Amino acid sequence: MRRFGTALSGKRIQEICGGNFRGDERREFSCVAELAQAQPDCVAFFEQEKLLEQAQSSAAGLMICPPDKAELLPGRDLLLHPKPGLAMLKLAGWWLQDLHPKPPAGIHPNAVVDPAAQVSPEAHLGPFCVVEAACIVEAGAVIGANCHLAQNSRIGKGSLLFPKVSVYPDCEIGENCIVHSGVVIGADGFGFRFEDGIQMKVPQVGNVIVGNDVEIGANSCIDRATFGSTSIGDGCKIDNLVQIGHNCRIGRHSILCAQVGLAGSTVVGDYVYLAGQVGVAGHLTIGDRAVVGAQAGVTRDLPADGLYWGTPAIEAKTQKQITVLQRKLPEIYSQLRWLMKIKDTKP
Amino acid sequence: MRRFGTALSGKRIQEICGGNFRGDERREFSCVAELAQAQPDCVAFFEQEKLLEQAQSSAAGLMICPPDKAELLPGRDLLLHPKPGLAMLKLAGWWLQDLHPKPPAGIHPNAVVDPAAQVSPEAHLGPFCVVEAACIVEAGAVIGANCHLAQNSRIGKGSLLFPKVSVYPDCEIGENCIVHSGVVIGADGFGFRFEDGIQMKVPQVGNVIVGNDVEIGANSCIDRATFGSTSIGDGCKIDNLVQIGHNCRIGRHSILCAQVGLAGSTVVGDYVYLAGQVGVAGHLTIGDRAVVGAQAGVTRDLPADGLYWGTPAIEAKTQKQITVLQRKLPEIYSQLRWLMKIKDTKP
Amino acid sequence: MRRFGTALSGKRIQEICGGNFRGDERREFSCVAELAQAQPDCVAFFEQEKLLEQAQSSAAGLMICPPDKAELLPGRDLLLHPKPGLAMLKLAGWWLQDLHPKPPAGIHPNAVVDPAAQVSPEAHLGPFCVVEAACIVEAGAVIGANCHLAQNSRIGKGSLLFPKVSVYPDCEIGENCIVHSGVVIGADGFGFRFEDGIQMKVPQVGNVIVGNDVEIGANSCIDRATFGSTSIGDGCKIDNLVQIGHNCRIGRHSILCAQVGLAGSTVVGDYVYLAGQVGVAGHLTIGDRAVVGAQAGVTRDLPADGLYWGTPAIEAKTQKQITVLQRKLPEIYSQLRWLMKIKDTKP
Repeated sequence: MRRFGTALSGKRIQEICGGNFRGDERREFSCVAELAQAQPDCVAFFEQEKLLEQAQSSAAGLMICPPDKAELLPGRDLLLHPKPGLAMLKLAGWWLQDLHPKPPAGIHPNAVVDPAAQVSPEAHLGPFCVVEAACIVEAGAVIGANCHLAQNSRIGKGSLLFPKVSVYPDCEIGENCIVHSGVVIGADGFGFRFEDGIQMKVPQVGNVIVGNDVEIGANSCIDRATFGSTSIGDGCKIDNLVQIGHNCRIGRHSILCAQVGLAGSTVVGDYVYLAGQVGVAGHLTIGDRAVVGAQAGVTRDLPADGLYWGTPAIEAKTQKQITVLQRKLPEIYSQLRWLMKIKDTKP
Repeated sequence: MRRFGTALSGKRIQEICGGNFRGDERREFSCVAELAQAQPDCVAFFEQEKLLEQAQSSAAGLMICPPDKAELLPGRDLLLHPKPGLAMLKLAGWWLQDLHPKPPAGIHPNAVVDPAAQVSPEAHLGPFCVVEAACIVEAGAVIGANCHLAQNSRIGKGSLLFPKVSVYPDCEIGENCIVHSGVVIGADGFGFRFEDGIQMKVPQVGNVIVGNDVEIGANSCIDRATFGSTSIGDGCKIDNLVQIGHNCRIGRHSILCAQVGLAGSTVVGDYVYLAGQVGVAGHLTIGDRAVVGAQAGVTRDLPADGLYWGTPAIEAKTQKQITVLQRKLPEIYSQLRWLMKIKDTKP
Repeated sequence: MRRFGTALSGKRIQEICGGNFRGDERREFSCVAELAQAQPDCVAFFEQEKLLEQAQSSAAGLMICPPDKAELLPGRDLLLHPKPGLAMLKLAGWWLQDLHPKPPAGIHPNAVVDPAAQVSPEAHLGPFCVVEAACIVEAGAVIGANCHLAQNSRIGKGSLLFPKVSVYPDCEIGENCIVHSGVVIGADGFGFRFEDGIQMKVPQVGNVIVGNDVEIGANSCIDRATFGSTSIGDGCKIDNLVQIGHNCRIGRHSILCAQVGLAGSTVVGDYVYLAGQVGVAGHLTIGDRAVVGAQAGVTRDLPADGLYWGTPAIEAKTQKQITVLQRKLPEIYSQLRWLMKIKDTKP
């Protein structure tokens, strides 16, 4: 269980999270935890009715709960808050930032920055970074160690690049993004033309444009467009080891779980959810709010708002029914053989 | 729409691409685009009959088209060329190289190069590269920032390594290859021997040999052989996040799309096409020109020239038929229940 | 065929591997090879009866074989050893270490080490490494070029990090681990809370704890826990491009093949084997010694000791039966249509 260096009183936690603290003002807390693992110096939260028993037996010293549930947790220190989970996020975020504060502005002496790059004096560049000509790094951006920003790329205000991110030429990352280690933005799209027995490379003259508030997981890859731009909408969250092909356009606030792969030129709407290892063929459209189950293989357009699963992906309800019946194939087959047999013997 | 810095006249474009220019010699163009997005200063191309309507209504200022199609595009500036798509590649390639010329020869002062390495004076080494003893980097090679060439590795003439490529000891990359950021060449093959309750590591004494004109996508991994070599044939194109296990041998001009995984010791022929997320078990042979559909799982040898799909992968035609019939399982099951029922009631 | 620089006599090989050498003491050997590829200066091994013919016709100069098989290989130089494969591992390991000895202790002048980090004088730090405050690097550890150890991380005795490994704050790697290039340990878990139309980031305050004798393949990612720890047990072997979500717990000596993905909070037992591209949903338990076939999608708990396959994964035996019957669907469908037809015509 992680203990944070700065212990907080209930009143101080109320200031950070909002809500109303009820309990011993002298008591201090130094960690956040799940109900079952929490100890007396921990803060936990109770939101879902079904976890009531766990909440009641939890050793947590401070419980964040909705005001109308207070009576279910008698004799405890409580922070009454209409959205306990949200309060918990704020508290954990506060402690985390206190533990690992943003590095100070400035360029590490071991970074290599082209004189023709524009790096805000309020940005941070770590050691062994390379920032090439015509790059723009805006105020509050943090560029981790060993990152590489190629010519004419741009990192927006407040964005955080963990160590070892590669940004190819001409690509743009918006404001307040988080890009994890090993991410590659703007590598060449995978385009070849078969000519005289060889695969000729199609030059990839486009770029990648990542919106604001986007998070991109470790070692994910977003390829540059052949012409035009590959684009990721504001608020998208992309997990680790995801592949986004050239010319894809992802809408806003969509979620792509780990190891998802999108072939080229596919359009994904807003608030779409692609579960782990989903593959999507090229030149398709996935409608807003569509949800695609893990490992599905999408081979045609998916209408908005649906729930899809399977390879090829169809409505999840139908796919589940088919999955159940596949398990009955041995029964189906033996009954059919029996029917065929008696048909033969009793004409 | 990207505009290139150097605008080109139709005549100049003819010099670059070949073909015959017909139109206004004073007019200049500064970008390439798809038919639908093209603007008056753009060059587009028309090759496939089915796009005729798009071509006719395109705002592109210059259209590259085959000579026998010229009459379908009256009143336009045209570059008549027997292979319009190929001409377009040349033009886009010219502009891209003009925009991002190859970095000059020389070793960045922030690179670390072992005195016992042989780096051609005509090669480029970026900042924070490491080149260990006995490495060879040939003329015209470009080694991006933060690349690592371990002992006794070799990069052939004219090959381009984007930033953050890792080459393990004793591995070889041929001539005119393109290796994208985050690629790892020659990490240990995944071999263990279960002995006394633990997985003992099998030392991987082999290497990786990559041929000429190979492109390897971002964050892909090619493992070194246990003994001998893992080899990638000339002209192969490998997309992002691909895994190639130890001792695999890939023929020439094969294409491996994103997130493909090959287990150890598998042999892939020439001109093979593995679509995205395909998995191939170990010790198999995939024949020349075989095409394997996305997400397929190959569990046995695949003969040459076939089209395969599914897990386990079989002939695509059969797999498609099965997929259609799986969708009919509800109907099959209900009819069978009905037949069983009347069989019972009418003996 | 790789030849090692140091040739060894049979007697010297006996000292390295154990066993009993029988043959010409003046003869020297300089490589290891498979039976079929071996040449007269190579050492090969014979263990499995079914390879007898290959062994008899092999050109290998020295054969390692069990004492009771010696008579099957008359007139050859032999190293009699109860476990020939194991002897071979020792020999290959010896030669490999002779060829690429561990780099000497010391910190490269181009590394950046925080004064508040504790780096053992017996550890090696390569060029362009970054070691932040409160890190611990123990004796015998080797940290390759361009690695990044964030605040408060710890690398145990004798562990080897190849170039370009990223370790996020507060994470721990045990003793004698091998971590390949591009691995990212401790990136944020993928947790969001949907609130007012946006995906709010759940701060990931936990860490990653990797046990002893673990190997992690190139470009794999292990995410930090939301609270608590993501943990990898002693002796686990993880292949390339594997994704392990936040709060997963992997037991001891388990094997995760390439491109496996585990969603969050899944518990994997000891000696589990997950084949390539397997996906596992979140909050599941996979029992000890369970084996899951390639590309399977695990959607519910799997009991210990079983063999599982398919999506959703079920007992492999049943899944195989279903796969066979799926191939019979065309036959099933046509017979059923026939039965339905005669039913109609002969009431």
